[in-house]
Amino acid sequence: MPENHVLYCGDSSLSGPAGYLAGLMTRFGIAYDYLPSDQPLASEMASEPRKLFVLSDYAAERMLPPVQEIVLRQVRERAAGLLMIGGWESVHGHDGNWDGTLIGTALPIEIMAEDDRINCDQPALLIRAEEHAIVADLPWEARPPTVGGFNRVTVKPGSAALLLVQRFQATVAGGRFDFTAQEQDPMLVIGAHGAGRTAALMTDLAPHWVGGLVDWGDSERVTARAPGSWEIEVGNFYAQLVANLLAWTGNLRAEPIG
Amino acid sequence: MPENHVLYCGDSSLSGPAGYLAGLMTRFGIAYDYLPSDQPLASEMASEPRKLFVLSDYAAERMLPPVQEIVLRQVRERAAGLLMIGGWESVHGHDGNWDGTLIGTALPIEIMAEDDRINCDQPALLIRAEEHAIVADLPWEARPPTVGGFNRVTVKPGSAALLLVQRFQATVAGGRFDFTAQEQDPMLVIGAHGAGRTAALMTDLAPHWVGGLVDWGDSERVTARAPGSWEIEVGNFYAQLVANLLAWTGNLRAEPIG
Repeated sequence: MPENHVLYCGDSSLSGPAGYLAGLMTRFGIAYDYLPSDQPLASEMASEPRKLFVLSDYAAERMLPPVQEIVLRQVRERAAGLLMIGGWESVHGHDGNWDGTLIGTALPIEIMAEDDRINCDQPALLIRAEEHAIVADLPWEARPPTVGGFNRVTVKPGSAALLLVQRFQATVAGGRFDFTAQEQDPMLVIGAHGAGRTAALMTDLAPHWVGGLVDWGDSERVTARAPGSWEIEVGNFYAQLVANLLAWTGNLRAEPIG
Repeated sequence: MPENHVLYCGDSSLSGPAGYLAGLMTRFGIAYDYLPSDQPLASEMASEPRKLFVLSDYAAERMLPPVQEIVLRQVRERAAGLLMIGGWESVHGHDGNWDGTLIGTALPIEIMAEDDRINCDQPALLIRAEEHAIVADLPWEARPPTVGGFNRVTVKPGSAALLLVQRFQATVAGGRFDFTAQEQDPMLVIGAHGAGRTAALMTDLAPHWVGGLVDWGDSERVTARAPGSWEIEVGNFYAQLVANLLAWTGNLRAEPIG
């Protein structure tokens, strides 16, 4: 195995949105290789043995079908994890275009063949739909966090939605607010591809779609900085959720926060 | 008067968050000069006649007191507008440190001498507190937008809060959500400094604090791209609010959207 168990592709660059997930992995002691969104994944880089592949705002056109197959063989045969994180350039999105691809077919979600972006100008809150290690020990009932948007998908048969997103219509009259529940959609879905675990988080982990989730916390703020990146400052529950997600999907150990 | 009526300082760079406001000004036909957050404002640039100065995530340490006085003289004596937009590097913020400065004293808000950042992991919605041209003809009652955070300030005597932000504690039990109103804080405050208009918006116009406000809309999305920047895609109500804010504070004409 190489030293860097994770291959993380996307989220523009380390000087931009990738600072969040790269910063957290650095903080968790999870070693990774990073590929910016504008660079294609070479078969050599895809072939190195990994425990987890993370694709976030990384368009399908950057990964040729033979390279996707190299990644999937690691998932199926070597039990590597495959995690897609939502965004305007993820799933279908604006330019993600993962529908109909090999990777898309291996994910636990059905990806639409059209723009699947839902931008939320009114409250959208996360709901825990099932108990699971990824969502354990977090205050889903006492303090559900908001998100700013997500890719709209459906859950494949045999896969499990651990989190949903509940949108609300808010109105105000005479100073009194009213909240009416609207649609629910899948937010976090897990599954398997051969021997490997798969997961799809439909919001982004970086602004703007991450919404209030990035600040989800109740104690001292978590700060982190990846090499070559900037210092992030985030909520402790958000950091814990990301740690859980990486640890489960990639069978990795994340150092405890704080 | 120069061709560029607006001097816009801050929001990192045109390849980053400044793409939002610069993109909108381009779309509105408002000509501007732009100064990135890491560059100090030189007295020559501050001395050019302007209709509006916009400071957003631009730290006080980048503007020496004599330069601040040059700006304020344009506001007082030539009726230029002064607009501060919130953020982690605005107001007091993390590194804004505008409290106790000449510019800070001219704004219609009282700035705290300590970290004033409020990050909202649960719903925070905008409320119209007064009728005014800046907030006219927008669906504040039918569709109040969310924000992701703001600088906490108080309103100076003689100034007017046009918008407030109302935070909610959301909880869920047995699948049913409950929303309990928490604190209200000023969100948009207007005032005067000599002959000029002043305004302070306590959220950011860019992620992550802008929250759902950036997507506030009900019709075709508004796209724009400033020279040297990237293409933004935002909600039509958000774009209209920004147009109103610039037009009123700077006595400027903004081209209609769409």
